[in-house]
Amino acid sequence: MEYLGRNPGNTAPLTPLTFLERAAIVYGDSKSILYKNNICFTWSQTQRRCLQVASSLSSLGLGGGQVISVLCPNTPSMYELQFAIPMCGAILNNLNIRLDHHTLTVLLGHSQSKLLFVHSHCLPLALTALANFTETTTPPSLVLITDDDDDDDDDDDALAHPTPAPVIDTYEGLIQKGDPNFQWARPNSEWDPITLNYTSGTTSSPKGVVHSHRSGFIMALDSLIDWSVPKQPVYLWTLPIFHSNGWTFPWAIAAAGGTNICTRRINAPTINRLIQMHNVTHMCAAPVLLNMLLTTTPTPPLNNPVHLLTGGSPPPPPLLTLAEQLGFKVTHGYGMTETLGVVVSCAWKPHWDRFPPTHRARLLSRQGVRTLSMTEVDVVHPTTGLSVNRDGVTSGEIVLRGPCVMLGYLKDEQATKSCIRNNGWLYTGDVGVMHADGYLEIKDRSKDVIISGGENLSSVEVEAVLYAHPAVNEVAVVARPDEFWGETPCAFVRLKEGLVTPPSVGEVVEFCRERLPHFMVPKTVVFKEALPKTSTGKIQKHLLRMDAQAMGSLVVPLSPTPSRI
Amino acid sequence: MEYLGRNPGNTAPLTPLTFLERAAIVYGDSKSILYKNNICFTWSQTQRRCLQVASSLSSLGLGGGQVISVLCPNTPSMYELQFAIPMCGAILNNLNIRLDHHTLTVLLGHSQSKLLFVHSHCLPLALTALANFTETTTPPSLVLITDDDDDDDDDDDALAHPTPAPVIDTYEGLIQKGDPNFQWARPNSEWDPITLNYTSGTTSSPKGVVHSHRSGFIMALDSLIDWSVPKQPVYLWTLPIFHSNGWTFPWAIAAAGGTNICTRRINAPTINRLIQMHNVTHMCAAPVLLNMLLTTTPTPPLNNPVHLLTGGSPPPPPLLTLAEQLGFKVTHGYGMTETLGVVVSCAWKPHWDRFPPTHRARLLSRQGVRTLSMTEVDVVHPTTGLSVNRDGVTSGEIVLRGPCVMLGYLKDEQATKSCIRNNGWLYTGDVGVMHADGYLEIKDRSKDVIISGGENLSSVEVEAVLYAHPAVNEVAVVARPDEFWGETPCAFVRLKEGLVTPPSVGEVVEFCRERLPHFMVPKTVVFKEALPKTSTGKIQKHLLRMDAQAMGSLVVPLSPTPSRI
Repeated sequence: MEYLGRNPGNTAPLTPLTFLERAAIVYGDSKSILYKNNICFTWSQTQRRCLQVASSLSSLGLGGGQVISVLCPNTPSMYELQFAIPMCGAILNNLNIRLDHHTLTVLLGHSQSKLLFVHSHCLPLALTALANFTETTTPPSLVLITDDDDDDDDDDDALAHPTPAPVIDTYEGLIQKGDPNFQWARPNSEWDPITLNYTSGTTSSPKGVVHSHRSGFIMALDSLIDWSVPKQPVYLWTLPIFHSNGWTFPWAIAAAGGTNICTRRINAPTINRLIQMHNVTHMCAAPVLLNMLLTTTPTPPLNNPVHLLTGGSPPPPPLLTLAEQLGFKVTHGYGMTETLGVVVSCAWKPHWDRFPPTHRARLLSRQGVRTLSMTEVDVVHPTTGLSVNRDGVTSGEIVLRGPCVMLGYLKDEQATKSCIRNNGWLYTGDVGVMHADGYLEIKDRSKDVIISGGENLSSVEVEAVLYAHPAVNEVAVVARPDEFWGETPCAFVRLKEGLVTPPSVGEVVEFCRERLPHFMVPKTVVFKEALPKTSTGKIQKHLLRMDAQAMGSLVVPLSPTPSRI
Repeated sequence: MEYLGRNPGNTAPLTPLTFLERAAIVYGDSKSILYKNNICFTWSQTQRRCLQVASSLSSLGLGGGQVISVLCPNTPSMYELQFAIPMCGAILNNLNIRLDHHTLTVLLGHSQSKLLFVHSHCLPLALTALANFTETTTPPSLVLITDDDDDDDDDDDALAHPTPAPVIDTYEGLIQKGDPNFQWARPNSEWDPITLNYTSGTTSSPKGVVHSHRSGFIMALDSLIDWSVPKQPVYLWTLPIFHSNGWTFPWAIAAAGGTNICTRRINAPTINRLIQMHNVTHMCAAPVLLNMLLTTTPTPPLNNPVHLLTGGSPPPPPLLTLAEQLGFKVTHGYGMTETLGVVVSCAWKPHWDRFPPTHRARLLSRQGVRTLSMTEVDVVHPTTGLSVNRDGVTSGEIVLRGPCVMLGYLKDEQATKSCIRNNGWLYTGDVGVMHADGYLEIKDRSKDVIISGGENLSSVEVEAVLYAHPAVNEVAVVARPDEFWGETPCAFVRLKEGLVTPPSVGEVVEFCRERLPHFMVPKTVVFKEALPKTSTGKIQKHLLRMDAQAMGSLVVPLSPTPSRI
């Protein structure tokens, strides 16, 4: 019976690239991409353009597992490159456009990238990064992406200078030279790499996460099911595509034959305008963007409900309540660069509809249950490795396994093996609890846990309370060293702008005291104009922790009387 | 970089069995199965019962790739066994309850089945089949399934006799003895077999099609996306679960947390009643069932649209028009036992909505495009193997490849290799054309093609015209040998019942002459009371072909004047 297994008919490698060809057949005349006021492609055109770019890359001798990088905001070309680069057999490496030039040099060198697609707005950054290369390493060549019509731009001066030497061609030039009948390079194995994403590095040096075609295929389909995406959604690109491949939605929206609304401008007025103009049905946004969208400008109520998938960090419940009030249908997912997209989500239970809004938001702020494709997710004791009790209280590290776990970190076998252990689990570094109903909730990144008087204290929980204060815009809680308690919670708070009577430190502490056990109440509150953030918008707690470290211990009371509940 | 590949975290085998555990967490209190007037389970209960059965099977020493068979209509137990049997590590073998006892003996022997779950209504058949076993082979033991409440049954006399010797336990007995905390047997590899389905054998001896856990996982998710199944559908079990694992919908409905409406009675009044009673949203039905449902009794218009997936054989366009008029939203899919479920479907294009009903039905009767998970589908020339022109006229054999292609035929390596060839394609034996828009259409089974005067003639096309005749209920067109033309089309027609003025042969021929090219018009029309069918309801054309063979040639005209257009 040995012949009953893999055979020539069933071993064709899984890859999300096959979605594009199908979209061109089924949705050939439908809109694939809209951009600005005058750019509109159909799925036939998008397929054709992707094949042409892939063909030109192949003609340049590129492919075969080489890395090709992209430094570009959410433009049509950025979308197309998510297909075109792997279609020539190369590994797609999207880069964060808000990186500093030193980091960019490091990443381009680390990946040994052969070619860098760069948007005109990022050209000065790219040229500086390339100038950092020493003579012993070869920098990538450049292909320049320009927007056809920049009438509505006021900051488009990058092309005022003559085309610089390392630029070998333009994006549209590659399209013109390419063969629309190019036979694209199918992977030899579904385990072949399709993409390389560098983590944003909230604490350590960036790591290059490599994912397979198989991972991309399964994650894209899984996300469509988990989020109940119908056929032909209108999807607004608020989530940067360079952020973990836009959680695989470039591929997923092709699978669904949807319309991609591209925009370079991620600000509240633009987003509100695009939602209205195009009848947007779906969008993704990290909580930081959601906060910006909902709290910094008056947001008009939506004409039609917009399905909003949030993730990347735990969303504060008050933000979820506000989003719901404005007409967003919020889904909350959890994932990481190492899992490519959303692998845990807060699947809504029908009877939750009957709860009041704040209760609903509280339930929705939990990370939830594994998606259909994920094999297992658990919360385990840090030393015994056993599952913690399902009591919503006992915390442990979140571990998971399944087909969308990365292949590993590029050129870092050691880090790969300490993340993905031989016992079959990926260790996330996130601390969480498992509730009695089988839903998990993140309490903190393990390094962000505050240990005060022997009690583990979740900075996320303290932050959630502070976010409910009407004057608070953003907040981060970290550990401050303490001679008596070991550590105490220290809150860095950015207040809303234009407050008539901003609260005092004492008022903020009192607000927390009414809502938290004594030991969780911040002993220190610092008002700041801005909180330090990574290029993907995550608050850099390690910098704030250094500030708190520098403060030293609070004065030790003469006769401490610790009281706990 | 060798470590960048399969690793302990990403190699967990894909299997649809993981959907059940998740359904119990997310939809634990929601209805999983409804049956008759008094049986209702929740997803928590269904998971518990499946684990208990799997536990008892394991205690009996079963598992490890052994075959366990089921002979049961669409009852709750039948649904549960789709999970419980593979959860003990065994291979699930659903058997057609309409088989004759000789065939049943052959299949139970061929599969070396260790245990047979048998519904009380099928017990006489099973006992006869077991009595056929010779002394040299060991028949399976029996587990008896009875319905708790058979009040509404008038044919329930199977248990009037004492329990016969080979019955080792009852289904509910296994549940009571089982451990609800059983650690179910995950497959060692996603390529391990999960199911064995015998083809219905329209022409040849039955073959045992083996599919993997991987195939089941991908097909179930793919079907949810392709059919746009929302969360928590209400699914009516009109398609027999023993028919190619109910096209994987037992697993898919668990993935979606839906409600399964089970019924033993597949007739028009029952189906209409259940649709109304439970607000059914989704159901599958082969064209033969659709014909029965829509034409034999007056069907009341639906209160809410019911999504109906049809497949198994090409649906006649007039039937699709009628279904649409009654409020069904019809999706047309194509698959075969060798692909487990639907791998090609007639994906609807938005602008088709504007066409008149008959045009829409004509478009929808085409098989369509590959689903998202299928890698490639093509129509190739029988000798050169090259793709035929996309002209909707040039016919060839339909070939396909992708992750849901079977592992092979049990104990038949030769047949496996002639079906799945070394060039990477599964040869379907279906003749089709590729239209200019990339949609494929089946013209015939290759053995059903009629070759008349050197022209290939699609029996399906002639049948489609005959189905449009208001007096025709069912029809099959086969080749009749002809001394001059080689073959001519011969139509076997079952007229509708209760016609006041049934048409004459001449009128039927004239009806065809007005709508078909001369050479496609049946030269022979035979009215029959009933057409011979397989146990899955497919018309047995090979028997009708024998009848036509026996007729011999039509009289050769003295001076034939062939006229073709």
